[in-house]
Parts: sequence; structure tokens; C-alpha cells
Amino acid sequence: MSKQRPTIADVAHRAGVSKGAVSFALNGRPGLAQATVDKILAAADELGWRPSNRGRSLSVSKAFALGLVITRDPAVLSSDPFFPAFIAGVESVLSSRGQALVLQVVMAGEEEEAGYRRLAQDARVDGVFLSDLRHDDPRIPLLEELGLPAVTLNRPDGTSPFPAVILDDRPGTAAVVEHLVELGHTRIAHVGGPPAFVHATARSTALLSTLAAAGLEPVAVETSDFTAAGGIEATRRLLTLPQPPTAIVYANDRMAIAGLGAAQAAGLTVPDDLSIAGFDDSELAEYVHPGLTTVRADPFAFGEAAARTLNLVVDGATDVPDAELPPAQLVVRRSTGAPPSLGSPSPA
Amino acid sequence: MSKQRPTIADVAHRAGVSKGAVSFALNGRPGLAQATVDKILAAADELGWRPSNRGRSLSVSKAFALGLVITRDPAVLSSDPFFPAFIAGVESVLSSRGQALVLQVVMAGEEEEAGYRRLAQDARVDGVFLSDLRHDDPRIPLLEELGLPAVTLNRPDGTSPFPAVILDDRPGTAAVVEHLVELGHTRIAHVGGPPAFVHATARSTALLSTLAAAGLEPVAVETSDFTAAGGIEATRRLLTLPQPPTAIVYANDRMAIAGLGAAQAAGLTVPDDLSIAGFDDSELAEYVHPGLTTVRADPFAFGEAAARTLNLVVDGATDVPDAELPPAQLVVRRSTGAPPSLGSPSPA
Repeated sequence: MSKQRPTIADVAHRAGVSKGAVSFALNGRPGLAQATVDKILAAADELGWRPSNRGRSLSVSKAFALGLVITRDPAVLSSDPFFPAFIAGVESVLSSRGQALVLQVVMAGEEEEAGYRRLAQDARVDGVFLSDLRHDDPRIPLLEELGLPAVTLNRPDGTSPFPAVILDDRPGTAAVVEHLVELGHTRIAHVGGPPAFVHATARSTALLSTLAAAGLEPVAVETSDFTAAGGIEATRRLLTLPQPPTAIVYANDRMAIAGLGAAQAAGLTVPDDLSIAGFDDSELAEYVHPGLTTVRADPFAFGEAAARTLNLVVDGATDVPDAELPPAQLVVRRSTGAPPSLGSPSPA
Repeated sequence: MSKQRPTIADVAHRAGVSKGAVSFALNGRPGLAQATVDKILAAADELGWRPSNRGRSLSVSKAFALGLVITRDPAVLSSDPFFPAFIAGVESVLSSRGQALVLQVVMAGEEEEAGYRRLAQDARVDGVFLSDLRHDDPRIPLLEELGLPAVTLNRPDGTSPFPAVILDDRPGTAAVVEHLVELGHTRIAHVGGPPAFVHATARSTALLSTLAAAGLEPVAVETSDFTAAGGIEATRRLLTLPQPPTAIVYANDRMAIAGLGAAQAAGLTVPDDLSIAGFDDSELAEYVHPGLTTVRADPFAFGEAAARTLNLVVDGATDVPDAELPPAQLVVRRSTGAPPSLGSPSPA
């Protein structure tokens, strides 16, 4: 390009604002009305102003990027409905600020730790999202050591210096159990997620305490791995119990849909012989036959709230409060109904 | 940190290699054995050597990152099995070179173009992956204008200066049709993806030409949008035709699984009354009842090959050849069987 590069003063003139406002807007700092930010970004675009990360980073020491390290086996990740919607929500906030999302998919253990260290040491990101919290999560002290700002998705069970964005799974899970109890079920089983995850434990605990409040104990509790293969194995174990359940509550839709297939393959009619409920309200939940009773969260809104909260921290705010989203809600479809024989156990 | 920062010479000494080799490894340039690269990266880690992107970028003008702009409605994206597995494959290559993946999720149109312009102008990435190619894809001239290196996932229909990574959908699609014809089906319908996509058209064209080679015409061809909701609507239209099909081939598993639910909800038994086939071999395909006949690609390997090829371009190689992966394969499960009444049309 032979043309002289436009300056911040040019952008300010074009947008009809102060140079300070341009600097605020182009550095993604808060305090301007969104309409002003939009006007400034439009003027910068029209002039072909190049923000030059290098220049921006040298002047304000920022990467203008946030990081997400997903610790999952790619096979497990590939049909998880949460992350794409969560990422889309994050992007909806980042794109208006000219920020980028840096993504890593790693296996647990050394590779995970190395992932965070690399993001910090390369100064690639200004902060990270901590998802899939685990009990005594080693990433919290790691990020403190690295000095990398973070938000946690839901609250960790230990102490944490980071604000949390909260979408409570428990009321929805409790509502599933109450719905089954109202239908007359007394023989309810549970297929939970890996107990290392805080969210898996939260769902299982909510289920058990709601059962207990109704004076019931679970027929059986299987722990599985959120995969369809794991869900089908757990279902087969439950269906071959001497006294099988009349209802199974799964910790996610994928295991529930696989369980529905397993029950049908075993000759059972859902819900006449067996009621099935999931968690996620993933896209297919509505369309399998019968439609799946489940619990609906809003991962897009979760992503938006997490990005807004992390940006407050990155912008230097202190005492950023936790952000609380509306809790997940019960969605009743046709996969749940009255038990086959009210009050008495099913035939073995 | 008060300690003096380790230098490249320190890393070379520790790893027992030349400073040149360290520079090659830390700059992610090709030409070293993977074991040597691993040894150097381990030595750099042990010494706490900080690669400092800023320094690296100033010295070699690289972002050490690749970009992926996904142009999809978040709702459509959220249960797509392709991207998470593709991204995991990309990461498996990037992480060994200390590269990052910068991800954007955008809507088609202005937002998409702005996404690519931002990546280029901010010098955030050294190259990008072009997925979901469209006919006369506007992104190809855009990237040429921006001077941003790229690889395309499959070959575009116009001219392109970029190498392509190819996973041919057509033989698998043809194999589905041949399988149905062998079973005795003559009344086959198709639910395709959006015709703007090159891959959707490729699958539909392969289906039609295989049918034609067998002397058949499709009962009907519905174009849909790859979503479960779209799949179910198309299925309902097909099932209420005066002469409904005895087999439906869908362009992805999501539409096929929704179609299976729609058929069952209409009182049909699959495959006795209707055969159903998908495309993807997504995780649930094996576990729905009956298991879904489908076509299996390998998006993880696709991601690996795309990252390797893009890195060749980014490293400055000229005339990088296209990379061709094994084509997608037919997987026969129980959702396909003989038609209800060989040789004669189904009752209306």
C-alpha cells in the first residue's frame, strides 16, 4: 500500500468523536455507549485503519484475545451440543470488540497444563474460560501461578480467585425427578456423568436428594462417561437387574438417546414399559421417537455472560461479581409416562 | 521473575543441538525430525524459555496461528459432528509446533467477510482453513485480495490458487444407493443439504447419477438445511406423497435420525416399511434403534491433513500439492432392508 496509513486522529475526525474515545473503542475498553463504539469501528473500517495487533499490544500490553482450552477426548467432544453453542455466544461478544478466540483441544494431564502454560507464556490471550470444572481442579492454582485472568463456568468446590458464571443444573434435575414421582414412579435409576466433574456430581446429588425428599431411594446409580456407548452399556446393566427400573434419568441427552435405542432394541416400549429422561435439550431430543423429556439450559447465553464477565476482569475491574443465569428448565415430552404397573415392581 | 531469561543458546546446549536447530524448532519450521523437535521443546520448557510471540513475530513476521472462520448459524452448528473432530485433528498438528488456532463463528454475508478481513488486518493468523465451500465462493477472491494463505476443504468449483485437502463424499454416497438397489428398492427419495454448498451438491449429484446408472429416477428430491427440524419436515412431505418412497437417503445423519423418528411417529417400522440411510456416521448413528446405515468419513484425519498442508503453504513452499484422504465408506446397519413389496409401489 502506497497510501499513508490513517491515524487515530483521522478516525476521530471521521466519527466525530475525540481521539480518546477512538483509543478506548479500538482498545476494547469499557465506558463508551455501544452506538459510539459502532460508529468508531465503522469509521476505522471505512478509512482502512489497521489496528495492528503488534502496535496495540506494545502500547497496552494486550493480546486482544481470550482463550478456551477444552479438555476432552475428540471422540467425546464431537457430538457434545454444549461447546459449539457456548463458543457462538462467546463470539457474539468478542466480535463486537475486535477480540479473537484462541481454542485448544487437549487431553487431560500434562497436555492440558502445557496448553495453559503456552497461552500464558506466548502472551496469546488476556484471559481464559475454565469449563468442565473438576473437584479440586488443578487448573485454578495453575492459572494463579501463571497470572492469567479467568472466569469459571459454575462455581468450583474449592476456593477460587476468579468470578464464576453460573447456570444452575440442579433445579431442572430436581424437576425431572418430581415429574417422574408425580407420574407414580417409585423405581427410578440414574446414569450419571464422570464423578470427577463438578457438574456431573451436582446433577447426581440433586437427583438423589430429590428422591430422598420423596421418601425414595434409587434402584441403582450407574456412573458413565457422557458418551452414547457408555449410555447404552449402563442401560443394558440396568435393564438386566432382577428388579429393573421403570424410569431412568440420564445426565445428558446423548446417553439418554442411546438408552432409548437400547430399550427399544430390547423390545421395550417407551414410555409404556420404561420412562427415559435426559439433560441438555440437544437438537435431536425433540425429534427422536418418542420425543425425549429433558432439561434445557442455554449455552449461547452462558457463552455471552462468560465473555462479558471475563472482559470485565481483563479490563482491570476488581471485585467482578459472579454472573447468574436463569436455571435450566424441565421440558416434558413423550418419553416419560406412568409406570407399567403402579405401586408394584416390574416383572424381572 | 528476577532470574535472567534463558537464551536460544541455553536451550541448544541443554538439548544437545545447534542454535539453528533450536530456531527452526521454536519457529515451527519444517525440516527437523519430530524427535528432535520434541527434545528441543522439552528443553525449552524445562528452562522456562519464553518464546514471546512479540519477539518471534517481529523477527520472522509470523503470528504462529492459523484461523478457522465457521459460517453457520450457532443453532445449526451446535449438533454438527464435523467441526469438533476436525478441530481436534487440526490441534494435533498445531500443538506440536506451538501454534494456536483462532476461531470465529459468524453468520453468512457481511459478518463473514469482516471476519476474514479482521484476521488479516490484525495479522492474527498466518493462514486460514476454508470449509463449507460454496459455489462461486466469494471467500476465494477475498483471500487473494487480502494475501492470506489458505487451504480449501475439498476442491472449489471455480479456479483457486490454494491447495485443496480432499475427502471424496461421492463413492460412499454411490455405495448407499447401490446397497438399496441391491436390496430391491426402486422407489428411492433423497433429502439433500443446501444447494449453495459444494459438498451438498456433490452428494446429491452422486446419488442421482448412481440411480440413473441403475435405470432409476428418484421418487422425489427434497432440499433441506442439515438440521433435524428440516429433516423431519422433508420426511413428512415424502411420506404423504401419493406414492411414497420405500427408502430415503439423507445428506447427513442428523436429518436421517430425525427422519427415523418421524417415520416411527407415523406408525411405520424401519426398515420393514421404510429404509433410511444417513451420512457422517455420527456418534448416535450406531445407537439409535434401529442402527443407522450411513457413510463414514474421518474428520479428525481431515483436520490433520488440512493443518499439515496449510503449514506447508505458510512455511513458504510453492506448488503445494493437494492432499487426498481415503474416501468416505458405506456402513450398513439395520435401518436398511428389503422394500415392503418387491417391485410394486407401496400403498398410498
